[in-house]
Amino acid sequence: MRARANRKPSRRNDPEGMRRKVLDAAFGMFQTRGYNGTSMQDLTKEIEVTGGALHHHFPTKRSIALAVFAERVAPAVRETWVVPVRAAPSFGQGIQSVFDAIIWSIDTRGSTSGCPLNNLAMELSLADPEFRQSAKNVFREWQDALAECLRETRAGRKMTKAARNDVAGFIVASYSGAMSLAKAEQSTAPLRVAAGILKRWLQAHELDR
Amino acid sequence: MRARANRKPSRRNDPEGMRRKVLDAAFGMFQTRGYNGTSMQDLTKEIEVTGGALHHHFPTKRSIALAVFAERVAPAVRETWVVPVRAAPSFGQGIQSVFDAIIWSIDTRGSTSGCPLNNLAMELSLADPEFRQSAKNVFREWQDALAECLRETRAGRKMTKAARNDVAGFIVASYSGAMSLAKAEQSTAPLRVAAGILKRWLQAHELDR
Repeated sequence: MRARANRKPSRRNDPEGMRRKVLDAAFGMFQTRGYNGTSMQDLTKEIEVTGGALHHHFPTKRSIALAVFAERVAPAVRETWVVPVRAAPSFGQGIQSVFDAIIWSIDTRGSTSGCPLNNLAMELSLADPEFRQSAKNVFREWQDALAECLRETRAGRKMTKAARNDVAGFIVASYSGAMSLAKAEQSTAPLRVAAGILKRWLQAHELDR
Repeated sequence: MRARANRKPSRRNDPEGMRRKVLDAAFGMFQTRGYNGTSMQDLTKEIEVTGGALHHHFPTKRSIALAVFAERVAPAVRETWVVPVRAAPSFGQGIQSVFDAIIWSIDTRGSTSGCPLNNLAMELSLADPEFRQSAKNVFREWQDALAECLRETRAGRKMTKAARNDVAGFIVASYSGAMSLAKAEQSTAPLRVAAGILKRWLQAHELDR
């Protein structure tokens, strides 16, 4: 409430709001049409602004993509994966709750556009070293966070940091690949299979809690 | 030798050769630049033909992509994955030999453009129902072939067809996701990790031989 009361008076020019609108629209359109399938003109149409106003905030489409990685994709991974796993009573339950939530959300929506990180990373990793670095950073942050959580598990606390990192990387890889299959099949079956196998695998290795 | 002796005399117009050149070039460019990042003009430049000659074989870029899925991506998955796993002395050794060959090839080249199927599937699965069906078909054929090979393993022969299919799907998913990480990191480390974990997991479940 305080933040609300203290906020600046609204202005006709709302650069923060404008920036937010651009990034929200770009994040959505890059997911469904791809970066190369979305033009600056598509974006100006979508958010109903002039090309000049858009260019004032983002001189190039490239600058929009870099901001989307840092300000939309990275937070999406944090909210979907890192926060729930950290908050869960155990690592195994955390991983399951993430899969359950994603499966539920796809089943409810009836379709999936895939993993926001994987989609953009696949399209742009070769296009530009900075894009690739952005994708790598998000994968790295995700993997590091899971590796850190693994320290709380019975077997994980005895493992080296490198070994925990490998386990975390395998979880990220299995999920990302299952999501690719889910996108191609428009079905949650590959995610259900991956969730089940990972659950039993973590249990068998005392990495669940 | 007979096929060679019986072939038709060479003609100035070589429609088969032309078709092959287009698909080879498109397969390569779709991998590195993406479908949306490759124009028909890029293709005519790359293979040094006129737009008219290209359009004669493929009226649209879309028709090229459908042919690339069926005549380049599907055979690549067969050659890289299905043939070596079928030929291996055991299922576990087959899976390892595929990972080894891919890791060796990336290390030798010093870079990777990722999995040809995953790249195109991610970019195009939402763009068009026929693209999605094409991607799904290749994933399906790959998974079916591995599921079939699993019948030869000690535990696999006692499993239901659905359970073998799940195991095959998990292998495809872990590999595809590891390849996504490998592409973003330009490193074979994620593939090495996935190969090691899958090897021990198959052994533990008597699915290696």
